[in-house]
Amino acid sequence: MSEFRLPPSLSIVGNREIAERILSEIWGGRGVFTCTVANTLTSTIPGVSDAGDTPELTLFTPAADAEMLVCGKTLCMDGIPINPGGIPTPATLTMAALELSGMPVYIVNGGCKIAPKIPCFDVGGEYGDYISTGKAVKNVRESFEKGRILGRMLSKGNDFLVVSESCAGGTTTALAVLTAMGATDGNHVSSSSPKNPKELKMRLVEEALSNAGIKRGDLAKDPLRAIACVGDPMMPANVGIIIGAAERIPVIVGGGTQMAAVIAAALALEPSIAGRIIHGTTRWLVKDPNSNVTKLISDISPDVPLVYINMDYSDSPHEGLQAYEWGYIKEGVGCGGACVAAVAASEGKIDCPGLLDKVHEIYENIINP
Amino acid sequence: MSEFRLPPSLSIVGNREIAERILSEIWGGRGVFTCTVANTLTSTIPGVSDAGDTPELTLFTPAADAEMLVCGKTLCMDGIPINPGGIPTPATLTMAALELSGMPVYIVNGGCKIAPKIPCFDVGGEYGDYISTGKAVKNVRESFEKGRILGRMLSKGNDFLVVSESCAGGTTTALAVLTAMGATDGNHVSSSSPKNPKELKMRLVEEALSNAGIKRGDLAKDPLRAIACVGDPMMPANVGIIIGAAERIPVIVGGGTQMAAVIAAALALEPSIAGRIIHGTTRWLVKDPNSNVTKLISDISPDVPLVYINMDYSDSPHEGLQAYEWGYIKEGVGCGGACVAAVAASEGKIDCPGLLDKVHEIYENIINP
Repeated sequence: MSEFRLPPSLSIVGNREIAERILSEIWGGRGVFTCTVANTLTSTIPGVSDAGDTPELTLFTPAADAEMLVCGKTLCMDGIPINPGGIPTPATLTMAALELSGMPVYIVNGGCKIAPKIPCFDVGGEYGDYISTGKAVKNVRESFEKGRILGRMLSKGNDFLVVSESCAGGTTTALAVLTAMGATDGNHVSSSSPKNPKELKMRLVEEALSNAGIKRGDLAKDPLRAIACVGDPMMPANVGIIIGAAERIPVIVGGGTQMAAVIAAALALEPSIAGRIIHGTTRWLVKDPNSNVTKLISDISPDVPLVYINMDYSDSPHEGLQAYEWGYIKEGVGCGGACVAAVAASEGKIDCPGLLDKVHEIYENIINP
Repeated sequence: MSEFRLPPSLSIVGNREIAERILSEIWGGRGVFTCTVANTLTSTIPGVSDAGDTPELTLFTPAADAEMLVCGKTLCMDGIPINPGGIPTPATLTMAALELSGMPVYIVNGGCKIAPKIPCFDVGGEYGDYISTGKAVKNVRESFEKGRILGRMLSKGNDFLVVSESCAGGTTTALAVLTAMGATDGNHVSSSSPKNPKELKMRLVEEALSNAGIKRGDLAKDPLRAIACVGDPMMPANVGIIIGAAERIPVIVGGGTQMAAVIAAALALEPSIAGRIIHGTTRWLVKDPNSNVTKLISDISPDVPLVYINMDYSDSPHEGLQAYEWGYIKEGVGCGGACVAAVAASEGKIDCPGLLDKVHEIYENIINP
């Protein structure tokens, strides 16, 4: 293995010492990528989620994303998941990183109404209800425990693990869990739309907490209850996977502000993981003017650095990809974490220009099959 | 990697050239171990299966075996699966091989009435009915297709794969499928009891075929239908895994005569896998006077060699283990395949004496926890 030096494709925000130590540890190592897919009916409330062409289609997005990662195409629907306006799922970038790095990928079914038509790890989850019910997620303890066993299983024979998610509506459930835990002082979560519907999300969160009989911060020490009341079924599985894997190997938590709730919950349950995890994401998210992942993560812990991939679609010939520069999508399906992992596993041989070429190849195959 | 030379821990029966070529290919390589667990109600017919202390407990054996491989202990029941008389499950030997080699292990839920309390790959299977119904297994095509995708997924980043099973009653369902396919001229399947209940098995098979409206050999070219009619839910998943993985890497088919049906089905669907697979098993099974795995496999194909581990429990201080020398258990939970894999992955550094020491350690921890 060559010695670690931060390549131009990656940037660090927050605790640089921890970030560089973890990157050194995994540099040239063997990674495994997991993506936990789940549904929450919350995504079907008009205006909440743009992760699908229509509110109903947001329920198909996680399954379709998983199928793309594993089979290179969707099986549960025609075409690929898009935002209104035809902007393609970030799974296209995740696929590029996985393909270039040869990293194995496993899908975890956190709880789906529309399940992927591929073999998934089952952790006993069911799809999530509207958070306004105040009892949104079933089998939280079981999913968490099985997730933890899975994290341990996957840490065997691998040098690091990437955990990620595809769950439309997930920034709203994340805001609800973060608020129930008192882990953030405001509304810093992002949106796959440049018009982040902050008021709608905050109103739903307040309604959910009220119906659950919870006030801000009440569940700081009971994150699994926060998830059961107002979260989504991606969360307990991923909290478990992180805690189980970090016992033995470093973990890249890949994703956007949705994963902030997962990190907050994991740290509350197992503080010793601080210093063993980095949040892997994209430049688009870190630079988003309508959210603040940096503030969100630093509020949660000073010891969880952000490492992001400097992907830039400005010069892409495809408008659907250029849209990422205009504030659309920005993150999802662990695309940022997968890129950080691909750079690290390849000792920097995989870089942004190489990833961009591969994204174009994948995207062109999709639009002209 | 050192050059391959057959170590004293391994022996070959059948096509030596293919066996040595595959062993050379995987020598010092990275393996992944899978075990597909399933239930068939057939195992609860008194006298059919000894893989459990009582006919009802045979339904717990697969889940408990899987839990032992993943967690080192059972979760769905107290104690460990035993044959009547207290002879311990062969999972003890599988655990020894996995622990010494550090090979990752993944459990596939082929279809269980009693499911393991751990994360499993779900392939859409359901537990199997009595074969006397003539329609014993549901979702065969789905399990097969998902198994094939899983085989491809697991071939990524690994040099070889071990596929195995725990499904009580499986030699009876194997005999039924082999007979429906006309792949054997008699009744050569084994039993976990030294008193192989051959007449009972043959009577059940004849009843099953008759109720399914099938005569011997009718389904030579339609193995998935043979499985749907008179097989068990372990089979379609494993047939798929073998075919999917063998596209890219060699496969060790670990197990007893149950796996003969899986091999016959896989070869009928995809003849090109011949030369890409070995049947990995134990000396106890190959030398069993009450069954004939050598004849069974050579009837199916001249190109599937048997490679077996020369484990010998004669000098064990534990009567439960000595019983393997008296014709009990002999195989199961991929113990033979796991041992062959451990020897190959370690370039022969793992050997029978080392495995025996580890089995003793595991067994003593179980009887005096």
